[in-house]
Amino acid sequence: MSAKNLQLDENGKLQHFLSIEGLNQQIITEILDTAESFTSVADRVIKKVPILRGKTVANLFFEPSTRTRSTFELAEQRLSADILSLNVDTSATTKGESLLDTIHNLEAMQIDMFVIRHKDSGSAHFFAQHVRPGVSVLNAGDGQHEHPTQAMLDLYTIRHHKQDFTRLKIAIVGDIMHSRVARSQIHALNLLNTAEVRVIAPKTLLPVDTESLGVQLYDDLERGLRDVDVVIMLRLQKERMSSALLPSENEYFNQFGLTQERLDRANPDAIVMHPGPANRGVEIESSVMDGNQSVILQQVGFGISVRMAVMSIIVGRTGLQVSE
Amino acid sequence: MSAKNLQLDENGKLQHFLSIEGLNQQIITEILDTAESFTSVADRVIKKVPILRGKTVANLFFEPSTRTRSTFELAEQRLSADILSLNVDTSATTKGESLLDTIHNLEAMQIDMFVIRHKDSGSAHFFAQHVRPGVSVLNAGDGQHEHPTQAMLDLYTIRHHKQDFTRLKIAIVGDIMHSRVARSQIHALNLLNTAEVRVIAPKTLLPVDTESLGVQLYDDLERGLRDVDVVIMLRLQKERMSSALLPSENEYFNQFGLTQERLDRANPDAIVMHPGPANRGVEIESSVMDGNQSVILQQVGFGISVRMAVMSIIVGRTGLQVSE
Amino acid sequence: MSAKNLQLDENGKLQHFLSIEGLNQQIITEILDTAESFTSVADRVIKKVPILRGKTVANLFFEPSTRTRSTFELAEQRLSADILSLNVDTSATTKGESLLDTIHNLEAMQIDMFVIRHKDSGSAHFFAQHVRPGVSVLNAGDGQHEHPTQAMLDLYTIRHHKQDFTRLKIAIVGDIMHSRVARSQIHALNLLNTAEVRVIAPKTLLPVDTESLGVQLYDDLERGLRDVDVVIMLRLQKERMSSALLPSENEYFNQFGLTQERLDRANPDAIVMHPGPANRGVEIESSVMDGNQSVILQQVGFGISVRMAVMSIIVGRTGLQVSE
Repeated sequence: MSAKNLQLDENGKLQHFLSIEGLNQQIITEILDTAESFTSVADRVIKKVPILRGKTVANLFFEPSTRTRSTFELAEQRLSADILSLNVDTSATTKGESLLDTIHNLEAMQIDMFVIRHKDSGSAHFFAQHVRPGVSVLNAGDGQHEHPTQAMLDLYTIRHHKQDFTRLKIAIVGDIMHSRVARSQIHALNLLNTAEVRVIAPKTLLPVDTESLGVQLYDDLERGLRDVDVVIMLRLQKERMSSALLPSENEYFNQFGLTQERLDRANPDAIVMHPGPANRGVEIESSVMDGNQSVILQQVGFGISVRMAVMSIIVGRTGLQVSE
Repeated sequence: MSAKNLQLDENGKLQHFLSIEGLNQQIITEILDTAESFTSVADRVIKKVPILRGKTVANLFFEPSTRTRSTFELAEQRLSADILSLNVDTSATTKGESLLDTIHNLEAMQIDMFVIRHKDSGSAHFFAQHVRPGVSVLNAGDGQHEHPTQAMLDLYTIRHHKQDFTRLKIAIVGDIMHSRVARSQIHALNLLNTAEVRVIAPKTLLPVDTESLGVQLYDDLERGLRDVDVVIMLRLQKERMSSALLPSENEYFNQFGLTQERLDRANPDAIVMHPGPANRGVEIESSVMDGNQSVILQQVGFGISVRMAVMSIIVGRTGLQVSE
Repeated sequence: MSAKNLQLDENGKLQHFLSIEGLNQQIITEILDTAESFTSVADRVIKKVPILRGKTVANLFFEPSTRTRSTFELAEQRLSADILSLNVDTSATTKGESLLDTIHNLEAMQIDMFVIRHKDSGSAHFFAQHVRPGVSVLNAGDGQHEHPTQAMLDLYTIRHHKQDFTRLKIAIVGDIMHSRVARSQIHALNLLNTAEVRVIAPKTLLPVDTESLGVQLYDDLERGLRDVDVVIMLRLQKERMSSALLPSENEYFNQFGLTQERLDRANPDAIVMHPGPANRGVEIESSVMDGNQSVILQQVGFGISVRMAVMSIIVGRTGLQVSE
């Protein structure tokens, strides 16, 4: 079964959320519209709806995460779910019990929805292939493959500020090669017919298949930023600094760090995004991060609305009617 | 005060759940019947009842556990309890504060129910002796002594598939000597007048008092399995493999591993159980674990219903009336 | 902006709870009165009120804590809050993200209230200075500065037993110099016009500014205890034993350990308090801790009521009307 079919049920409704690849424009738009209604929930005095009441969501983080895990847990609480959060020590799981045994044991606990982060690409698909009908899997980051809820919150942020994607020039800057975020973003931006998607990175960090993804490649930041409407910075994984792929932090900042001067090459009303946590002074200058073109903190809040939206749409599929 | 009296109040109602030893057939049956009603709760769209609403349950795990702890936490959430989960670092508790001080401090937080796992046999009884009236203690495994909710879920699984215990031949296979699960199971099966309970283990792993427990001893797996209706495999504690008590994993599997061929000595409709996590290829062949006689995953789900039942019965004792 | 103004809004209402210093008698009394109403909640069969329903509280513990964290989490659950609890590894935060970035990211998740424990004095004030309007910060202990909810539960305990502070002689015994608890207590007792506050400690542990705090200094325990109504023992931080400031545990007990014989110098109905966890046989004799003048365990339960009170008062400020 292909990834495409795996995410959608026989009626074309969302049953898992594994990757942007394999989704269509209609589903993406439904998620964004639903998230918009939840953004107003967040502004209410009481930020709670009973959509997942009596449902159990298990958060399985095989990799540590604070931001993604916290926003998922808050989204689940605001939907009134029962929550089981497990930090799974991978060394322990390899000892006695395989990943598949872990899946089946948790499933036997009548878990309705799994949120999974795992260092192996394809692990969320693997989970989805092995859970029984009616159980859903959400990918919270699988290796260097995809991080689709992050991409959705990025789309949401862009739409919030810029509306029509078909007129936008968007630049993604940084370590594209190792970024599951970038891969998901590119798929999503293409699905919404973004006018132009640019990828800006040192030559050593440009993956070979980016051109096939339908993007423009730049290895010069200043040229790449010219006239763009949105600048998406990626986090530089410091653990990769030691490899031969990257120069020193200083040198990286000199060539690819986003300064105000460089940002001025973009459109005057361009927005600056970053999935966080940012390395101030490495991929982005502090003053730009805190500047008035930055929407980085807004992204975090939108992340909760988007995750609430995805979970609600998936649950809605089962026919559960909830009035507030 | 004996363990027997400690679990029951002056009216013979359950006030703690510490060991199968000391319970009677009536209470066991009440738990199984109540669990049956909660199994249907698990199948509902909304798996939640307000029986523990406004009550606080503290999960104190002095030993790590994923399965038991997760099923307890889910049971508590589905009963709508407030939950305090503490992974107690034993080294820390020995430093400044005794176990008794820990008990009294938590009790002062108006905890209504304690779920305790501890490496010392008798620790749950110790807790129960020192909490004030109205506070209940549930044993989630104490040393090599008992693990009574595990035994109850095993009983539940057997009754679900085989009904009448008085006609059943049941074999327990593996490291009986170090197993708190086996000890609880044997007591429980005897209480329900099981026709025959067999214990199958290498001679070095048969404890001296098993005969007094009213069981048949076998040190040959194939003979022991003949005509049984239920096969309960125990987990082989790998940390004991290094001791002189056990041969190598390979050799163990050769002599005591459950293969399909060996299982064929049992009744054709015999079921296979395991408390988990199983060591595939050590105490049980993978194909048997996943085969159609295996009810191992069902046990996990029943574990939630059984734990909900025990907690509900204990709370019901206090006279709290709850309508859903 | 001074600490005083920071805690109160333009109408003099509590918007943060950072330190006893800067509060007035009216607010202290309001907290104590509100806590009294929650103490009766704790005695109910169902210990839950919906005052924080749909609000999110984040517990950020940059220092480990069991007692304070557990009582905060229970208070939040009993107020029906959504809860995000993070044990923040300080080494991790210094790596990629500053404390300020952590604040802003969490704030972007629409957190309504932060509970913060941090090893740096002034960190809670720093937080409060940087959150946006409408978001509140509660200090759960900042370095050697203050631990104001602990001081409030101490006040509550004293009032519960002794009513009128203006007639009381109260002794605080132990390592005043390093104790954020003592600092908060002294401010609070002065605010309620306590007749006499005595500080009893080895000369090496008396901070230089205690006299300016309006207390009487004693370096002799037996003289200091004479005729007091309340004895507050402090925890001896064992990690400081190795320093030159303190004699051996034995010697300390010989000079400053609270024995029954010494306690008999106080008024016959004097009560004994301790913030916990106590070192039995170091700062306090076991029999005194468990004796009938000890109210140490009561303090723990009152801690929940006091924390519920502070959170309720802060939320009430926003105009949220809740009927039960």
